[in-house]
Amino acid sequence: MTENFPAELVDRLVAAKEASRAVARLTSGQKATVLNAIADALVSSSARIVAANQGDLDRGVADNIGDGLLDRLRLDEARIESLAAAVRDVAKLPDPVGQVVGGHRLPNGVALEQVRVPFGVVGAIYEARPNVTVDIAALALRSGNAVLLRGGSAARDSNTVLVAVMREALEAVGVTADVIGSVDDFGREGARALMKGRGFIDVLVPRGSASLIETVVTESTVPVIETGAGNVHIVLDESAPLEWARDIVANAKTQRPSVCNAVETVLVHRDAAERLVPAVVEALQQGGVTVHGDDRVQGLASGVVPATEMDWDTEYLSLDVAMKVVDSLDEALAHIRQYSTGHTESIITTDLHNSERFLAEVDSAVVMVNASTRFTDGGEFGFGAEVGISTQKLHARGPMGLSELTSTKWLARGAGQVRA
Amino acid sequence: MTENFPAELVDRLVAAKEASRAVARLTSGQKATVLNAIADALVSSSARIVAANQGDLDRGVADNIGDGLLDRLRLDEARIESLAAAVRDVAKLPDPVGQVVGGHRLPNGVALEQVRVPFGVVGAIYEARPNVTVDIAALALRSGNAVLLRGGSAARDSNTVLVAVMREALEAVGVTADVIGSVDDFGREGARALMKGRGFIDVLVPRGSASLIETVVTESTVPVIETGAGNVHIVLDESAPLEWARDIVANAKTQRPSVCNAVETVLVHRDAAERLVPAVVEALQQGGVTVHGDDRVQGLASGVVPATEMDWDTEYLSLDVAMKVVDSLDEALAHIRQYSTGHTESIITTDLHNSERFLAEVDSAVVMVNASTRFTDGGEFGFGAEVGISTQKLHARGPMGLSELTSTKWLARGAGQVRA
Repeated sequence: MTENFPAELVDRLVAAKEASRAVARLTSGQKATVLNAIADALVSSSARIVAANQGDLDRGVADNIGDGLLDRLRLDEARIESLAAAVRDVAKLPDPVGQVVGGHRLPNGVALEQVRVPFGVVGAIYEARPNVTVDIAALALRSGNAVLLRGGSAARDSNTVLVAVMREALEAVGVTADVIGSVDDFGREGARALMKGRGFIDVLVPRGSASLIETVVTESTVPVIETGAGNVHIVLDESAPLEWARDIVANAKTQRPSVCNAVETVLVHRDAAERLVPAVVEALQQGGVTVHGDDRVQGLASGVVPATEMDWDTEYLSLDVAMKVVDSLDEALAHIRQYSTGHTESIITTDLHNSERFLAEVDSAVVMVNASTRFTDGGEFGFGAEVGISTQKLHARGPMGLSELTSTKWLARGAGQVRA
Repeated sequence: MTENFPAELVDRLVAAKEASRAVARLTSGQKATVLNAIADALVSSSARIVAANQGDLDRGVADNIGDGLLDRLRLDEARIESLAAAVRDVAKLPDPVGQVVGGHRLPNGVALEQVRVPFGVVGAIYEARPNVTVDIAALALRSGNAVLLRGGSAARDSNTVLVAVMREALEAVGVTADVIGSVDDFGREGARALMKGRGFIDVLVPRGSASLIETVVTESTVPVIETGAGNVHIVLDESAPLEWARDIVANAKTQRPSVCNAVETVLVHRDAAERLVPAVVEALQQGGVTVHGDDRVQGLASGVVPATEMDWDTEYLSLDVAMKVVDSLDEALAHIRQYSTGHTESIITTDLHNSERFLAEVDSAVVMVNASTRFTDGGEFGFGAEVGISTQKLHARGPMGLSELTSTKWLARGAGQVRA
């Protein structure tokens, strides 16, 4: 680390690094015990957590953050119960640490083995929802890592208490509290220390808005796993069955519009436009969606508002969708190349040539044929956990499971071999 | 990319990105054909390459860069032949692209498949030896990537011709020349464009001095694979057999002292010091090595120069080694934690408890028992190629094979499924 940070903040990084060695040595069973103790502590500390959360809610009301954000911020007894249940689920997940990834013997007899090991210290910079504090800590711990958290200021009071409760639970079972740390009390300086903490932070995961992620990716000198931003496309091919087109687009937009795997732009082949656009637009409008269409879409359905260049570039995360008629699959692929964030794209088609071309040429983390983009999700993929969805190509791509929170190392066992 | 670069430099990035789509679609057989054409072109252009290389050598002599660097810089007909042979070897390596890494069906029937895909554009910033220009281009191409190169100014003329020869060979077999590009003609601005080229450069691999790597890691906003720096340790445990200790230390230091897997510090358990130090020091000195020892080492062998704090921190890359007597395995592990660059460490021991502790607790890319650290090498590991040795934990750790130059993507094939 080349920059000067307050000594107390550096101590926090050092403490996390030291704690990472302790947690790396815990067995799978011990880590499950620790996680269950954390779950118990969350439930038994409900009143204290709810009281702290009320402080955040009061500030949220005063700051006029809006009902949606207030709801995401709120922790009540039921939500704390389900947060604890999620931690117990994580405790049951298979431990990736120690998994033998591969190995072989060298010609000279040296036995090589590549095994999964924890990263060490996972840093996380995130916004808004206080449950992320517990989620990330649990996932990091299950995969043998210490974690240093930097939460959003809107959830400050809740996060402070959640971290305190988890640290108390760690100590109660005889594990150093520094396995779960926070740098929230250092404000922006804390976030900067995570981003510049080479030698202390082994990987940094930003979760939140596109601008938060952009800042972290741009400013960090520690390795980052970029997550999230999803300007997601669905292409309705000339051969797309009406029912699939309508149901998949409506599902991908309305089932949960505020998340990164929701569709944002629909591209319709011109030779199917007349057949598909009216029904798809109608289904969307029945779901409360505002369709932002180009001229040809506007000509085929009523209630469509004009799309501008901006719309192609927008991740709405709301009940809005952009729609455009394209002259060819080539034009659709070019549009996706230009505007996609590389998260998820899907084509609706019965044409084998077009489906294979789409799968091969679209350069996104998940490329689908005839399925809703909402399936891009760690839970749906069967990973049992939601670490985030990587939109970069290094290390992890797409939904991340616990094993994406680990690295590997090579073990070499010899009997005196030297290199000739 | 948020910064302003000259339009012609941006064009270079755009051209590489476009070329990456072309090379990603080549079959394994087509890529082998292209690589063999490049090998042929290198051989048939020997005279032109040697002539350009003479310009670099003349400048090197004028700049007094020293015999070692001059030798690394030199290209003669024989070296060009072996460079071409290396390219032909790369052409024979199994193609990682298209490899199915995993997959399963979701409960609703959607078929998931995770497949290896090229990164897209691999950037490389490197120094000195012109053969790296060809090595990296060949490895990137074999794994389906386009490459943008930024070589060292000392090899400027050689690199210019090598890139030109490879580009001509690409065009001659009908592949866009921009699969292999260089930004050397833009000077430092070219390197900066690679480091800041988000959206154009998918991964950046620095190869060279510690300071070069530090600069790239610190300044890049594109994902970097950190390679190289090796402050490598060997621990001589109390139980270390004299012969293994002597032969492995001497091999690890003298077999090729200028490379990253050569040992730099030897830590000797105090209860074995009297037995081991004299013989190990003698073997090293016979190999021309200067031993920098602490007080106790100096007391046990003659001709040892005093070690200072600096020595523990130094990657000599020369016929020098630091040696220290430690009171315990704990002290050796603590020393390694403090000074190691996380590349390779080895313990010489016959004690099972100590060997297992060393394997478990040393946090390095390769951890060895009773073997020379010189085995940390892509070729020795059987990867058939030397992409570099990653000392970071993200994406790749230790010797990198061709598959480390790829990412993955998820393919999802459904029949109208939507999320409930």
